[in-house]
Amino acid sequence: KPMKVDYILCYNYKKRRISLHRLSLTSQPELEAGLPEGEESQLSEEEKAMMREEFESGLLEQGLQLERDKESRSQGIGFIRLHVPWATLSREAELQKIKVPVKKVCLLPQKHTCTPGSFLSNLLLYEEWANYGVMFKYQPLDLIRKYFGEAIGLYFAWMGVYTRMLVPPSLLGLIVFLYGVLTVNTNVPSQEMCDDNLNFTMCPLCDAVCDYWKLSSVCSLTRASYLFDNGATTLFAIFMSLWAAFFLEHWKRRQMCLKHAWDLTTVLTTVVAKRVCVCVFVCLFLFLWQREQESLTLEDRLPGYMINVSVVLMMMGVTFSAVFGVILYRITMLSIWSMNPDPEAKASVRMTVTTTAIIINLLVVLILDEIYGAIAVWLTKLEVPKTEAEFEERLILKSFLLKSMNTFAPVFYVAFFKGRFAGPPGDYVYLFGHFRMEECAPPGCLIELCIQLSMIMLGKQLIQNNVFEIVIPKLKKMYRTYKEKDKGGEEDEDEEETKRPKQQWDKDFSLDPYEGLSPEYMEMIIQYGFVTIFVASFPLAPLFALLNNVIEIRLDAAKFTTEIRRPDAVRCKDIGIWFNILIGISKFSVITNAFVISFTSDFIPRTVYQYMYSQTGSMHGFTEHSLSYFNVSNFEADSSPSSTLFTGVTICRYKDYRDPPWGAQPYSFSKQYWSVLAARLAFVIFFQNLAMFLSMLVAWLIPDVPRSLREQVRKENMLLMEFLVQDEQEA
Amino acid sequence: KPMKVDYILCYNYKKRRISLHRLSLTSQPELEAGLPEGEESQLSEEEKAMMREEFESGLLEQGLQLERDKESRSQGIGFIRLHVPWATLSREAELQKIKVPVKKVCLLPQKHTCTPGSFLSNLLLYEEWANYGVMFKYQPLDLIRKYFGEAIGLYFAWMGVYTRMLVPPSLLGLIVFLYGVLTVNTNVPSQEMCDDNLNFTMCPLCDAVCDYWKLSSVCSLTRASYLFDNGATTLFAIFMSLWAAFFLEHWKRRQMCLKHAWDLTTVLTTVVAKRVCVCVFVCLFLFLWQREQESLTLEDRLPGYMINVSVVLMMMGVTFSAVFGVILYRITMLSIWSMNPDPEAKASVRMTVTTTAIIINLLVVLILDEIYGAIAVWLTKLEVPKTEAEFEERLILKSFLLKSMNTFAPVFYVAFFKGRFAGPPGDYVYLFGHFRMEECAPPGCLIELCIQLSMIMLGKQLIQNNVFEIVIPKLKKMYRTYKEKDKGGEEDEDEEETKRPKQQWDKDFSLDPYEGLSPEYMEMIIQYGFVTIFVASFPLAPLFALLNNVIEIRLDAAKFTTEIRRPDAVRCKDIGIWFNILIGISKFSVITNAFVISFTSDFIPRTVYQYMYSQTGSMHGFTEHSLSYFNVSNFEADSSPSSTLFTGVTICRYKDYRDPPWGAQPYSFSKQYWSVLAARLAFVIFFQNLAMFLSMLVAWLIPDVPRSLREQVRKENMLLMEFLVQDEQEA
Repeated sequence: KPMKVDYILCYNYKKRRISLHRLSLTSQPELEAGLPEGEESQLSEEEKAMMREEFESGLLEQGLQLERDKESRSQGIGFIRLHVPWATLSREAELQKIKVPVKKVCLLPQKHTCTPGSFLSNLLLYEEWANYGVMFKYQPLDLIRKYFGEAIGLYFAWMGVYTRMLVPPSLLGLIVFLYGVLTVNTNVPSQEMCDDNLNFTMCPLCDAVCDYWKLSSVCSLTRASYLFDNGATTLFAIFMSLWAAFFLEHWKRRQMCLKHAWDLTTVLTTVVAKRVCVCVFVCLFLFLWQREQESLTLEDRLPGYMINVSVVLMMMGVTFSAVFGVILYRITMLSIWSMNPDPEAKASVRMTVTTTAIIINLLVVLILDEIYGAIAVWLTKLEVPKTEAEFEERLILKSFLLKSMNTFAPVFYVAFFKGRFAGPPGDYVYLFGHFRMEECAPPGCLIELCIQLSMIMLGKQLIQNNVFEIVIPKLKKMYRTYKEKDKGGEEDEDEEETKRPKQQWDKDFSLDPYEGLSPEYMEMIIQYGFVTIFVASFPLAPLFALLNNVIEIRLDAAKFTTEIRRPDAVRCKDIGIWFNILIGISKFSVITNAFVISFTSDFIPRTVYQYMYSQTGSMHGFTEHSLSYFNVSNFEADSSPSSTLFTGVTICRYKDYRDPPWGAQPYSFSKQYWSVLAARLAFVIFFQNLAMFLSMLVAWLIPDVPRSLREQVRKENMLLMEFLVQDEQEA
Repeated sequence: KPMKVDYILCYNYKKRRISLHRLSLTSQPELEAGLPEGEESQLSEEEKAMMREEFESGLLEQGLQLERDKESRSQGIGFIRLHVPWATLSREAELQKIKVPVKKVCLLPQKHTCTPGSFLSNLLLYEEWANYGVMFKYQPLDLIRKYFGEAIGLYFAWMGVYTRMLVPPSLLGLIVFLYGVLTVNTNVPSQEMCDDNLNFTMCPLCDAVCDYWKLSSVCSLTRASYLFDNGATTLFAIFMSLWAAFFLEHWKRRQMCLKHAWDLTTVLTTVVAKRVCVCVFVCLFLFLWQREQESLTLEDRLPGYMINVSVVLMMMGVTFSAVFGVILYRITMLSIWSMNPDPEAKASVRMTVTTTAIIINLLVVLILDEIYGAIAVWLTKLEVPKTEAEFEERLILKSFLLKSMNTFAPVFYVAFFKGRFAGPPGDYVYLFGHFRMEECAPPGCLIELCIQLSMIMLGKQLIQNNVFEIVIPKLKKMYRTYKEKDKGGEEDEDEEETKRPKQQWDKDFSLDPYEGLSPEYMEMIIQYGFVTIFVASFPLAPLFALLNNVIEIRLDAAKFTTEIRRPDAVRCKDIGIWFNILIGISKFSVITNAFVISFTSDFIPRTVYQYMYSQTGSMHGFTEHSLSYFNVSNFEADSSPSSTLFTGVTICRYKDYRDPPWGAQPYSFSKQYWSVLAARLAFVIFFQNLAMFLSMLVAWLIPDVPRSLREQVRKENMLLMEFLVQDEQEA
């Protein structure tokens, strides 16, 4: 009878190295493959063979059963199939404290170590999970955990919770957007902007080549801006802060339940568990290597740290210069294209340049993302962390830092810096002496922020999902198949006896190796950033995220079941550092939303006008009030339009709160400016503290452990007590 | 041989009721006394005797040994002395999972249940701990814990950590204060205020009876104000935010170590542990009662909750009206005393009224404190919480809410509201049509805040420590002794046979009952509030707290060892809800300090003047700039001084940023006002976010579990593993 296969080691013989992958205790037959990756070894072929033998004898000593193919003379890949008998497994489970066996009678056999058998096949998972047909069903989490282990189970559980939690904000975001659509016609400031009768002559937006323009010419953009910048957005932003707190609490509770159901409460630390596993099973090498690491002093590590800090700083510099480069592109393009004498081309210049700039931005973000990922791995290796858990954690922190900055830097620029340093007419700020600092589109920066956000978010999701997650693996697979065929032909000629029927492990070996959960988490966390950090300027973000995730879950499922080798099962208590990152993002989002509402949107100036300056208490006259006067005779030599379609312009208007030319201090900030600024800042304080207080209240009101779970644990404890008492009395 | 006494039950027979106090497992001989408090029972004397018998037979069944005095015919106090044999104790320890006994061989006897013996006598503790001679030594925490149990041990450990952590801020606060003392002579604004040559004629501070006054007449108060309001204070406030974060982290680590050393990690929940204890030992009544509680539906509880909410709201109303009453007292007193024609009396009116008002405030705070304590207990009983732990938690929350509000409401009034609604000259705000709203003393509200704070903090500490903690217990004891003598005489006549030599338990019974740790914690937490919440206005607060605590620890120690009955040992994992309250206070303090610095102190106006308005970049001219002009002809009929010593006053000055009478909009807020307001608000945002970020960084950088402890736990686990493996191989 053929032996059950629990785990497969594979190595390249007569060519490069043995590769010993860390072992895990899964008892699923026929579908395991060790990864041939690992550090290059400098050992000779004989030494390797010896080490292999020693290793294998160690395994046999531990009670494992081995089965191997005959080695062929020439080079190739050898497979060693392992089977772990039930007795060994039980002992191991006990050692790892999977359930503390108070008395052997009652608690063993464990529910943990999944019973051998074929009912849990890949096929079942594929049908129940990795299928678009079951898109709206809950995921079969217990199956996933049994087949892939706890770490991957927790990831998909988290994805499920996150996706489900996205439904309410998606709906509310849509309602906020629809509210904007429905009320845009009754909104006074938009109407005033579109009213030709008010006839505001605006100052030119660039030097010499730009003409004066009528405010009513940007009417449509103003109306579009209102869709995302109405009163409901503020409420929505507060709601989203609460939502974030609620989401985190909800996940905590869900995780508690899973921890209990999956029996993870007794995992002391992954370090201990893994150590024991490694110690009992194999890996003298790993141990020696680790001991060597532990003796590294601070002095040995210092250069690593220094390189780390300096490279991270350098990468930040790269990010900022990429953003700056795009700004330069925009400024120069604008000034060059504006010289085009064709008036129609001139009209569309702004939009064209903005759009191309965003696309460039997106491409830069995508490329740097890949580069930063590689750099983070390199840097973390330099640090030589002691354990694999520590390695993971540091890698995640670093790559999160780099990638999130890379993604959000251009958005931050548009939200908080663009157009703030342009200077008033007559006192423009120039970059390199030539290029005038860019200003936002006339109806405010919010609409630009909105476009930027939606483009980067959608672009990143679509391109990373489709190109990076589907197309590139396909290409890789094709390349590998092509290469193998090449080699296979060679081998065929070489030797006939290695020919054996293709086994499952041969097929699995041709699959992609599993690359960890970090990229998957990272993608979702960055998306979470889009959903929370700038939700005040783009209320549709949750909806887009929801649509993406519904597909993403099944895509990932398909990838895990069919595209990659079965990963080692890893036990872990929780989603670890990702939860802290989520908390950090949620806290940060409160601040950014407060600033977006008060500084990027026109919410505060409008409110201040209504309650402080308006004569009638309505918004009528807001547009007039928000524009300052400029005397065109104050233009510097080459700033005024060289040719103009407007005649007899003596005063033009610009959007700022400054004293008029006839005031005591012309063009200095007016009293309105300071009062609006005070109101903006007061709003930031109010919003931030309100949101923080409400989040704390939510976190406090929702207990971390659900009542039902608490009751259950209590009952289980009572049962245990009773059992102990009984046992005592019997003894 | 006399039996060892582990625990003593006592009851009043032939008179009122049995009182069964919850039991605890301590094995210290000779020094335990059950408390005779409990709910009144309506049972007849016979029923009680039956219940008592049933109860006692239950105890005997559980393996306890009983010893009792002969009951005398008439009424009196009966003592039942219990002894718990070692076997029973061990079983109990096992059931409570004090250490999970994997194999009986190795881990029992526990280090937990303290070995019987007399080396741990009260006397030793008294010598080593409750003694002013050992004031500067560490506390013997292990002894305390062994004698009093974990809950009290943790309290004293916390006190120790808190007191030690107070040393750096005390020193730094002193340095900040000394910096003020040393630089007061070089401080330009104070010099300007004292400069007679500048000759500012100020507007009168009250209607009709007050005269104009010279700014230089408040010179000394200004100088005093500078001592607490200099640049160093701001840095000190940021330091204190960091200190708070550091303190919390440090305590977490200390608690971890204690938890490990005292073997508290396996206390599942106090609920479970206590339940088991209760269940195994006694208390059929308690069980029935509890089951009855559990069946209470929301409807049954609703009236309780409603009363709760409404009473808490009402109490808040009472607090605010108390504060308001003191304000009214101040306003009326000021206006009445100001009519005194004697100019010397007039000069001292302000100070006298302020001081008496603060004393009244203090008395009100102290009295309400006691009342609120009683109300909180009453309210929590109405809620009928399920378990004692829940009862504690709710009681603490309620009394903390009421007491802290009571203590801090007057301080908040002075810090943020006093003088803000007085209105500019000519447009004063009147209360009830007669009384002008009070203004702060001329050099700003900060000095008043300072006086208020120091008086309430010192007064509360001194009076509560001395009167409430020392004098009142003494009086109570005297009263009890007097009463007992009275009764004793009666008994003497009644029966001669009850006469037996006075035992230790008779003596202990005459001591005060133990009233829980809540009052002790509450006192410290309120003090922590003084130390953090308003530290920006009173940098000496940590020093006063430190001085108080050094004495307080020994005072409490003496109280616990000599003044009260030995408390039941209570096992608990941590300091529970108090830690959350500490976190809450620390977060709140960041906000209040930000507001105190930017709105109560003159730090922001001075900085804005220096960098925006000053011609020379120095502070010269700040006083001039911060005073607005008022044309005395604009006074309303009865507002102008009826008789004045000043001649030819046409313009007087007042402290505010308003446009002068000759401006476009006389007496409206000037541009300076808005720019200073914006700066104040910006500072709040900056300070709050900086402090929060730094606190988070501190919390993140300091691991919760100290490295040494982690290593130790890992080693212990390794040993356990080895033991298990060995055991496995032997089997």
